[in-house]
Amino acid sequence: MPRHVTHVPLRWADLDALGHVNNVVYLRYLQEARVDMLFVHAARNGAEKLAGGVVVSRHEIGYRAPLHFRPAPVRVETWVADVRAASFTLGYEVLDESPSGERTVYAVASSVLVPYNLADGQPRRVAAEERAVLETFYEPDGPAPRRAA
Amino acid sequence: MPRHVTHVPLRWADLDALGHVNNVVYLRYLQEARVDMLFVHAARNGAEKLAGGVVVSRHEIGYRAPLHFRPAPVRVETWVADVRAASFTLGYEVLDESPSGERTVYAVASSVLVPYNLADGQPRRVAAEERAVLETFYEPDGPAPRRAA
Amino acid sequence: MPRHVTHVPLRWADLDALGHVNNVVYLRYLQEARVDMLFVHAARNGAEKLAGGVVVSRHEIGYRAPLHFRPAPVRVETWVADVRAASFTLGYEVLDESPSGERTVYAVASSVLVPYNLADGQPRRVAAEERAVLETFYEPDGPAPRRAA
Amino acid sequence: MPRHVTHVPLRWADLDALGHVNNVVYLRYLQEARVDMLFVHAARNGAEKLAGGVVVSRHEIGYRAPLHFRPAPVRVETWVADVRAASFTLGYEVLDESPSGERTVYAVASSVLVPYNLADGQPRRVAAEERAVLETFYEPDGPAPRRAA
Repeated sequence: MPRHVTHVPLRWADLDALGHVNNVVYLRYLQEARVDMLFVHAARNGAEKLAGGVVVSRHEIGYRAPLHFRPAPVRVETWVADVRAASFTLGYEVLDESPSGERTVYAVASSVLVPYNLADGQPRRVAAEERAVLETFYEPDGPAPRRAA
Repeated sequence: MPRHVTHVPLRWADLDALGHVNNVVYLRYLQEARVDMLFVHAARNGAEKLAGGVVVSRHEIGYRAPLHFRPAPVRVETWVADVRAASFTLGYEVLDESPSGERTVYAVASSVLVPYNLADGQPRRVAAEERAVLETFYEPDGPAPRRAA
Repeated sequence: MPRHVTHVPLRWADLDALGHVNNVVYLRYLQEARVDMLFVHAARNGAEKLAGGVVVSRHEIGYRAPLHFRPAPVRVETWVADVRAASFTLGYEVLDESPSGERTVYAVASSVLVPYNLADGQPRRVAAEERAVLETFYEPDGPAPRRAA
Repeated sequence: MPRHVTHVPLRWADLDALGHVNNVVYLRYLQEARVDMLFVHAARNGAEKLAGGVVVSRHEIGYRAPLHFRPAPVRVETWVADVRAASFTLGYEVLDESPSGERTVYAVASSVLVPYNLADGQPRRVAAEERAVLETFYEPDGPAPRRAA
């Protein structure tokens, strides 16, 4: 299945006192990719309720290489690693891809997300039409944040 | 062993458009607790080189309850979950503790950290005196970000 | 009249790639001081509607000295420089004060704020009871962001 | 003279608890526009030393309209309002421009910047070749943050 691709421009303010993108800021990039995928893309395709009605239950992120400031955006690829009854898991890679297809991966991450009802603030099940949209990005065997031993 | 305690004041800017502390900002709180523990406390106790010379290799965080704005700081407890040859793992709880000792936990997290030499930018082993300081916070069986089944 | 005093702890994340508190972050400190003054203090004293119902119309800030990371909070003093029919102006100094009373000023700033009705989103006049609370911090001749020639 | 144009994508994290781009974040957009103009553009055109060697002395910003989240970047136009012996002033407008040329201005701002020597950390004069580059963006009568009476 295709991954969802978001190009996230760096900001100079993303750098910390050590001069590279701070480890916390990578989570901001994942947030932007997630908003882009769920609010913009999925909302156009029949899963409107996911937009705004998703709570983060867990994040995991493994850092692979430092990211330095440059004018070009960084690429965030997002996929759906798992869909359960009342939650789903996104996988992400933050990377650069050269014109010849060589990839430099800066981070690998995953997030467990829980849909909830805006009306009563309670978690709810993943609806059938949401599952269908999520499954267009399904990649159960994608890379995981923990390094292989 | 005692945990290291840091009181982190919230900022109004930590709130997102949903009106509670954004999930990414919790990682900022962990960063402040880590800086407080490693730069301020540990630096006073013989592990000066850890200050500034540590790279984050991995984060994991599980969210337990939403955190709303209030003037009082939130409590971050930090401990050392593991010390290996060339890395160590911190555990954290973000919580409130009432005067009667009742605890409300907002998040449980862990970070794998790698010491490195500022001079050549290469990872290095944990030095004996650093291990001794880290072990004063050793708690191998603390809570983990993944919920029990 | 007394100034309102807020102690704002720095965060390591406030530093930019040049290693000192980024110029934009000072505005965050002013925001925290303003929230502290208007939401916490003023709300307790009869100007509840100012809390949440104020829009920033203008900021001006002059930087006097670089601010480096340290565990101690920085002091923000806030006063009311002007109250008009439908707006008011806050003045601020960001500073350290030594035990002997010596002051190191990092920035001087001002903000023009406009009360508005949450119900219809329209600007409104400053109410009499709000004016009374604001005037407890009145200091029309305080320092201004522009340096004297 | 032409203005320097930077397209700054919004981030969802730029929103505050009131649901629109926080007033402080506009200063981040100005910072990105400034970095783009001085580090990227000017550095290519003979004023390399301005990149990295500029300190903000003063900011002034007037807000004109609230900015809501959307996928499209916002436009920041930057010009040089003044060049003095040892400082220069940038003007900015944060705006949208429709295909038919209609402009919606969200903020008007200015910054006084001081070149300094990286070697000794002292302010220095604007060099002749820097003045020449800055003057390619010279617009002394641009809009100012204070509203006309």
